[in-house]
Amino acid sequence: MRTDRRAEPSPILAAARRHIVQGALNNGVRFALWPDDTDSVATVHVWVRAGSGVEQRGATGLAHMLEHLMFRGTSAVPDGVFDARMEALGAQINAATWVDYTCYTTTAPPEAIGEVIALEADRFGGLDLTEEVFAAERSVVANERRQVIDSVPEARLGEHLHHLAFGEGPYGHPTIGWAEDIEGYTREAVLGFLERWYAPGELLVVVVGAFAPAAVVEHLEATFGGLSAGPEGERRRGSRFIGAGVHELRVPVPTPRVHVAWPAPGRGEPGWATWALLEAILGGGDGSRLPMRLEVDEPLVLDVGTHLYPHAMEQLMEVDLTVRLGVDPERVLGALDEALEALATDGPTEEEVLAASRRLRMLDAGALAPTAGRASRMGESWVTFGDAGTDFGLVDEMRQVRGEDVRALAGRLCEGLPRLVLHGVPTGEEDA
Amino acid sequence: MRTDRRAEPSPILAAARRHIVQGALNNGVRFALWPDDTDSVATVHVWVRAGSGVEQRGATGLAHMLEHLMFRGTSAVPDGVFDARMEALGAQINAATWVDYTCYTTTAPPEAIGEVIALEADRFGGLDLTEEVFAAERSVVANERRQVIDSVPEARLGEHLHHLAFGEGPYGHPTIGWAEDIEGYTREAVLGFLERWYAPGELLVVVVGAFAPAAVVEHLEATFGGLSAGPEGERRRGSRFIGAGVHELRVPVPTPRVHVAWPAPGRGEPGWATWALLEAILGGGDGSRLPMRLEVDEPLVLDVGTHLYPHAMEQLMEVDLTVRLGVDPERVLGALDEALEALATDGPTEEEVLAASRRLRMLDAGALAPTAGRASRMGESWVTFGDAGTDFGLVDEMRQVRGEDVRALAGRLCEGLPRLVLHGVPTGEEDA
Repeated sequence: MRTDRRAEPSPILAAARRHIVQGALNNGVRFALWPDDTDSVATVHVWVRAGSGVEQRGATGLAHMLEHLMFRGTSAVPDGVFDARMEALGAQINAATWVDYTCYTTTAPPEAIGEVIALEADRFGGLDLTEEVFAAERSVVANERRQVIDSVPEARLGEHLHHLAFGEGPYGHPTIGWAEDIEGYTREAVLGFLERWYAPGELLVVVVGAFAPAAVVEHLEATFGGLSAGPEGERRRGSRFIGAGVHELRVPVPTPRVHVAWPAPGRGEPGWATWALLEAILGGGDGSRLPMRLEVDEPLVLDVGTHLYPHAMEQLMEVDLTVRLGVDPERVLGALDEALEALATDGPTEEEVLAASRRLRMLDAGALAPTAGRASRMGESWVTFGDAGTDFGLVDEMRQVRGEDVRALAGRLCEGLPRLVLHGVPTGEEDA
Repeated sequence: MRTDRRAEPSPILAAARRHIVQGALNNGVRFALWPDDTDSVATVHVWVRAGSGVEQRGATGLAHMLEHLMFRGTSAVPDGVFDARMEALGAQINAATWVDYTCYTTTAPPEAIGEVIALEADRFGGLDLTEEVFAAERSVVANERRQVIDSVPEARLGEHLHHLAFGEGPYGHPTIGWAEDIEGYTREAVLGFLERWYAPGELLVVVVGAFAPAAVVEHLEATFGGLSAGPEGERRRGSRFIGAGVHELRVPVPTPRVHVAWPAPGRGEPGWATWALLEAILGGGDGSRLPMRLEVDEPLVLDVGTHLYPHAMEQLMEVDLTVRLGVDPERVLGALDEALEALATDGPTEEEVLAASRRLRMLDAGALAPTAGRASRMGESWVTFGDAGTDFGLVDEMRQVRGEDVRALAGRLCEGLPRLVLHGVPTGEEDA
């Protein structure tokens, strides 16, 4: 099986290299097109290379707040009309804000691509933001934060973990923003964010589906080409782990939780593939090492979660443990260390490496289903690597990682690398 | 725009006609293969042409119960080993039971297709069903019913609606089964169902992805070809609407609910496309007729839901209304009639027909995303039409429906067709 893993580039990488058309308009707006006649749906994405990672203390959550406001109308397409027009086209619209980006997504019948692009360019060019609309949406966001963070103990632990790990750095605050920052938003601050970060040079328009690239480029020139550049502000800095040590947060969880986190490379940094394979061997699937060790061999925890995201910059690899009632969290930490030491000593088996790389490959391929998945990958690739066609080689990247690389990394986790432990201690409120 | 709607067959229909390879093994197991080198994931489905629609009173829910048991091991692959083997292959497994079918789905790396097929054939050939495993799984299912039906007032209304509509007919009971039937299951009854309905002649194996069809057919012969046929029992009868009239059910809903239902053709019966277009014009999207009439123009309801499923036989078109507190449900019914009469008198606008057909086309195309979506469509097509390659022409079918067809159908809803009204009357338990 070993030799199979070093075969030809994956079909999806080869297709990406062959088909993606990239370029930029005169004003700096980039485009990445993947024409494909085999799909009967087209996808149009507008990616903004600014998410919560560009925000500063006092103004956290602005990227997400602006995402909400972008649906509230312009002078040409007033509040409510944008949705109605898209619906009449048969289009499905959505948006997302994340640490590295904000993204506006539309799937539509191929013949509607032109109208979709025109509607998008209109709102990127001229948000009509009244104080009334602004205030209403700020309440919506404040309420959203209460629902998704403040009333969810596990989310509060996650938020605290990232703040301990990165402080005021790019990944140190939640994407939705701190509660006091949301309350303090002003219309002017949002418009300032818009002017700085929704500038032509920060935008990528992605189109995947059945179309002629030249016609779409011409249409982009006539619409997005009209956006004008504002002053360019400072770009975000790198992220830096500052949270080594043991910490505690009292929250109303039913049983203790232990979060253990190490600084890990970003997707655009060297070594990410080895970390990804390590994460899959530790926590990918019920048969992986940590569930087998901590749930089956010795029932210490109710649940094991492991996480490693494709963030652009230094981030966290997390192991989140839900401790069984009556079990000492220190015993759980000890068992986790034993599992890591076993991996650091003997390394993964050939079968483990194969199963983990297959798992990652399946997740990767599933996310690439035409056309929306491919469009997302193109945008993420641009945000992370500065090029929309780079991030299609995960399978090939995984083939380069050997079992001994994973063993060496496990060794660094045991001894060489700082780590952060956050104990989620039940407040007992659940019993009240 | 009108002429555009009668263009060439859709690309997906053309591709389906060109690429799907269908056939049968000597023992009657059918296969449908769609080889496609462009996808890096393969999908293997085993479809059983028996869902809850073949069940009789006293034994409802057996198809779903058997679906659970199919994961519990054989003499060759004991309990727990099936999951572990699939996980090691990088495969993701799932299953579903519905009115017309039961379906076992796997997505896997293409090189694992052979092993996946062998594992599937093993469990289709030799379930090792001990009394202990059987009793444990029966408790799981009984508990599942309590969670998804008994404790959800809206689900109890839906269950009651279908029983009023079809009585002891194929679609008259819930797929999970009546509570008293679940309690009464015996191991022998399940094995009887397995013998009758998991017979070779009731199975279709679907494979989509990168593979050589001849090699897969050879492998199917060596695995599924070994299944032997049992005695063939009676096939299910057609479904028949018996529920006209006004009914009432007291349930702990927060505000009154009104369900209105008409008998509508199955997906394999003539006229379905006109019903689908009517349903989309009435309730597809926030801008469609019923939300605009009942939520915006006159705020009578909190929510409008409309449903028409691709069931094989006569079924229901439903309009489900969540009445605002303090509004008379009779006023809501009156407003619904007004909306239907308006459509019956003037018919839909050209724009409405276009938007609805675009919407249906988008839903259709989205469901066809390679490879799992295509595999599902092939199985559903076989269950409904007896041919895995038939149901890829929705776009073309929709092009044949004219605005006047929808107007005429709306007229039948107003006057010619029996309908069922079910009032969900709050018990007031919510206030306690």
